[in-house]
Amino acid sequence: MRFTARIQVMLKPAVNDPQGNAVLGSLHSLGFDGVRDVRVGKMLTLDVEAPDEPAAHRDVHEMCDKLLANPVIEAYEADIRPG
Amino acid sequence: MRFTARIQVMLKPAVNDPQGNAVLGSLHSLGFDGVRDVRVGKMLTLDVEAPDEPAAHRDVHEMCDKLLANPVIEAYEADIRPG
Repeated sequence: MRFTARIQVMLKPAVNDPQGNAVLGSLHSLGFDGVRDVRVGKMLTLDVEAPDEPAAHRDVHEMCDKLLANPVIEAYEADIRPG
Repeated sequence: MRFTARIQVMLKPAVNDPQGNAVLGSLHSLGFDGVRDVRVGKMLTLDVEAPDEPAAHRDVHEMCDKLLANPVIEAYEADIRPG
């Protein structure tokens, strides 16, 4: 079976986000004064072949733990659907 | 009023994604043979102050068009909610 996983990886709230701060500064200098905070993370879309849905979930979470997210400073959310 | 915008910026499907290909190769070498395709994009979370919801939508789309996404090669989706 084919699954699509959408994985969102963000820095944990306590971790400083220099890229987010740079974007915030750029938005302010463009005149967007209403922006108070910016956090920048990754969004990954994976096409995964797995025998069933539990196997797809297990695989994707293992990929996140081993490669896609750094559990020390990042948190991830994975949305896995057939198709 | 305070709004939270979650903006997802991905390369358009026709655009080659070297970062995604690198992640795909790494996943294969870790033994995740079921992965067929990987695309890597950005996820931005913004706290925005705006007088009302239409103004927040207008501001966020303008930020995307001017700075956060490159319309030539990227497509974005913005989800904007009060709070």
